[in-house]
Amino acid sequence: LPFSFEVKDSDLLGRIGVLKVGGKSLETPYMFPVIHPVSQNVPTGELLSMGFRGLMTNSYIIHSRRREEALKEGIHKLLGYDGVLMTDSGGYQVLEYGDLELGYREVASFQSLIHSDIAVTLDRPTGYPQEKRVAKDTVDYSLANARATLEGFGSSETVWVGPIQGGLYFDLVTRSARSLAKAGFQMLALGSPVQVMENYMYADLVRMIITAKRAIPYATPLHLFGAGHPLTMPMAVALGCDTFDSASYVLFARSGRYMTRGGVLTLKSMKYLPCSCPVCTKTSVMELLELDHPQRTRQLSIHNLFILKDELQACKEAIVEGRLWDIVEERSMAHPRLREAFLEFAGLSSELTLGTPALKERGLFVRSASDLSRPEILSAQRRLADAIERSSRSARVGIGEGEGRKGSQMGKGGDLYKVHPIFGPFPAELEFHYPLGQTEVGDMVPQFSLEAGKKQLRALGYRKVTIAGGSSGKKKVRSRRSRRGASPSLRSSSARPR
Amino acid sequence: LPFSFEVKDSDLLGRIGVLKVGGKSLETPYMFPVIHPVSQNVPTGELLSMGFRGLMTNSYIIHSRRREEALKEGIHKLLGYDGVLMTDSGGYQVLEYGDLELGYREVASFQSLIHSDIAVTLDRPTGYPQEKRVAKDTVDYSLANARATLEGFGSSETVWVGPIQGGLYFDLVTRSARSLAKAGFQMLALGSPVQVMENYMYADLVRMIITAKRAIPYATPLHLFGAGHPLTMPMAVALGCDTFDSASYVLFARSGRYMTRGGVLTLKSMKYLPCSCPVCTKTSVMELLELDHPQRTRQLSIHNLFILKDELQACKEAIVEGRLWDIVEERSMAHPRLREAFLEFAGLSSELTLGTPALKERGLFVRSASDLSRPEILSAQRRLADAIERSSRSARVGIGEGEGRKGSQMGKGGDLYKVHPIFGPFPAELEFHYPLGQTEVGDMVPQFSLEAGKKQLRALGYRKVTIAGGSSGKKKVRSRRSRRGASPSLRSSSARPR
Repeated sequence: LPFSFEVKDSDLLGRIGVLKVGGKSLETPYMFPVIHPVSQNVPTGELLSMGFRGLMTNSYIIHSRRREEALKEGIHKLLGYDGVLMTDSGGYQVLEYGDLELGYREVASFQSLIHSDIAVTLDRPTGYPQEKRVAKDTVDYSLANARATLEGFGSSETVWVGPIQGGLYFDLVTRSARSLAKAGFQMLALGSPVQVMENYMYADLVRMIITAKRAIPYATPLHLFGAGHPLTMPMAVALGCDTFDSASYVLFARSGRYMTRGGVLTLKSMKYLPCSCPVCTKTSVMELLELDHPQRTRQLSIHNLFILKDELQACKEAIVEGRLWDIVEERSMAHPRLREAFLEFAGLSSELTLGTPALKERGLFVRSASDLSRPEILSAQRRLADAIERSSRSARVGIGEGEGRKGSQMGKGGDLYKVHPIFGPFPAELEFHYPLGQTEVGDMVPQFSLEAGKKQLRALGYRKVTIAGGSSGKKKVRSRRSRRGASPSLRSSSARPR
Repeated sequence: LPFSFEVKDSDLLGRIGVLKVGGKSLETPYMFPVIHPVSQNVPTGELLSMGFRGLMTNSYIIHSRRREEALKEGIHKLLGYDGVLMTDSGGYQVLEYGDLELGYREVASFQSLIHSDIAVTLDRPTGYPQEKRVAKDTVDYSLANARATLEGFGSSETVWVGPIQGGLYFDLVTRSARSLAKAGFQMLALGSPVQVMENYMYADLVRMIITAKRAIPYATPLHLFGAGHPLTMPMAVALGCDTFDSASYVLFARSGRYMTRGGVLTLKSMKYLPCSCPVCTKTSVMELLELDHPQRTRQLSIHNLFILKDELQACKEAIVEGRLWDIVEERSMAHPRLREAFLEFAGLSSELTLGTPALKERGLFVRSASDLSRPEILSAQRRLADAIERSSRSARVGIGEGEGRKGSQMGKGGDLYKVHPIFGPFPAELEFHYPLGQTEVGDMVPQFSLEAGKKQLRALGYRKVTIAGGSSGKKKVRSRRSRRGASPSLRSSSARPR
């Protein structure tokens, strides 16, 4: 039963993939709900019928509480679930409970014997905050176990996941990720984002993820541990995280917290349920508050899972339609720290072009200065820079629509250009090429004026630059109330006005 | 059966209200789904069970196609619906089909005889674009009919709605709204937003609504005709529109368009359904595409209605929690033109303070420069300006936390201040007052430095300004990567850096 991961579609570094393991398959991006092997609130069968075809659980807890049963029945029968089961090593618990009998060998052997489909090798989470010396130890310990596991158990049916540690020490993250990839892991997982996220350090989360992504092959699926928050999901997907796991749906539920796409609300201070999921269409805030704690937790868990599922579906649909950037930016308005993270993310734009299709069917939205560094715009700027060829000493700037199509006029009085509010002067025949004619620019974004366009053409070596056409009165470059000066050069690789 | 409208809660100009009419009640903000009296795709009973306790329909169509029946049975029995029924006059159709027999008297009489709960007097929509001369005629015609209807039929059980016209001629809108309010209408409706919205002129929509709101009493409920788009709903609610009507759910459905909170998608280019409503949990894109047209329209209509309902619930929950501004800003990222509209909206902030509670339980998010003009911030700036009293020639600026509480230090070496990143210097004893201690400010927003704070204190007349405390190392004003200068003055009424 071979393991495979195939990328079907992509946008930014996000991708739709098919993960095949143990004869089963999962479409990514995917979030594994974390279930408790002893006291699971939402039955596994219900999770499956909601569309969750993979779950994650903790092999340490199974080992310490249901070992014999698990060895006899296998984990799938034990949990009553025939989808993909991923097991965490329980490195944290091993450390916490000082269970010194459990080394990498026992952990791996157990995961393999209970037929876990995907298993994380015994690691030690770096955490945050952490001293560098300790962080280095967690990386070394996790790496040594990972290598040894692959050596000793690589031929088992279980697919091993290499845990990337290092926390916010990016040099350690790089070394950890590179070494694991080199060791031959088919799937990797980035650890320690939980405390970073709990502290609202979303910009650091962006840096952690991109550091790991830079160090591993594009084709290797990357798991992000414990990142089940609707707010950070689109950004993590756009940075190339393929799978997630999270117990947040039930942890939030237990403390009476209700997820929405814009953030998490507290049930007891709510009056309205802004959702039409199977839970919310049948109940009210009042009724939920009247339930006993396990019942309420169960209902809120299911609602929270629907929100997470919808958000993953929204990310997938956005990838297919080429508007992942847009939903990342939209969600970023939910919190000031998330907006900071978005600016960090936008700064990575040139790296995000890799998975971004050159041609999209949709108009390109520019609604903030950060949007000027959209990968589609960077790519177009590069293509345009190559397309500009001076074949005359004079240039005409057309301001009517469709002039580039009138072949008769071409070259008559010099090279014919148009001025785009974002891209500046460009050869007129490209007028209807993507994204020149498909860019929707908001007033609040700094834009090229006709004058700035003429100036730039002179800088390209034209002696004479004149205005042509436009008798129709239609100006391609709209006049603006405020114009804070245009991007300095067509050849500059970045238009980021930060 | 008296008519009443009671405001229960408010934020910005948005409010939760209870509209009582015909012995029934509706909670606002509310959207009346528009139904067709002859060929209705989603049965009225199903609309009721989805939670829609009010519907709108067109009295002209009933008059021309089901008149006798309607007069005999009454509109509720005719449509099989015992919720609130609102009827539009059909002014547009009367004009379109040149039905000269129908004057205001016949229209009003018919609406009253069929027992419409709420009815719009015969009007003539201004539309857009429109010549001013014609626009003026539509206002005059609509106003004359409205006055005459109230005079002739004011004692009927039907509640009459005065239609505000004028389109984008704001002087006409003002006159229209004022005259109708003065004529004694208990409910008003703003016309002509449809074409404005279809042309993405959202900033103009903001101007239209605020113009109408300025001209009418706060207590009068305002209906916005035909504004059933999830993107514009939060902004319209925040500007004080209490009710809406829209056929968009079915019009979009007919052309295979699928609403999401972030915009409208085209079913045939979709792969995933990012929704868990009763329709979407039971089907897939593929299955929807395989349905025949009426069936698909019906399913998409229901889905679209759930989205609109969820968005209204989200607005209501945001009003209750005092974060209506936040969802308006979040949604504004969905389109560059909507973002422009948000900047227009933010510019109205001082008018939005009216309904905004002075104290909120939530932290105040500042994630964009526009957020600096949040009404909560403007109000706090005014209160702070009043609170600053110079009782000494010297001022100390505390940088440790909680110093304002140590009474012993007060006044020791001069007046004690702290510097807030947004508000600048403030009397230290206010440190934990809302919103000083509850403001979450993103890095990208221009902020006060300690130096700028000291400078401002000198401008207030202090001869000597020193730094005090801070041995704890905790600086209240965090150091920033980029600091683009702080707001010039505490007393300036606006901090908008546009």
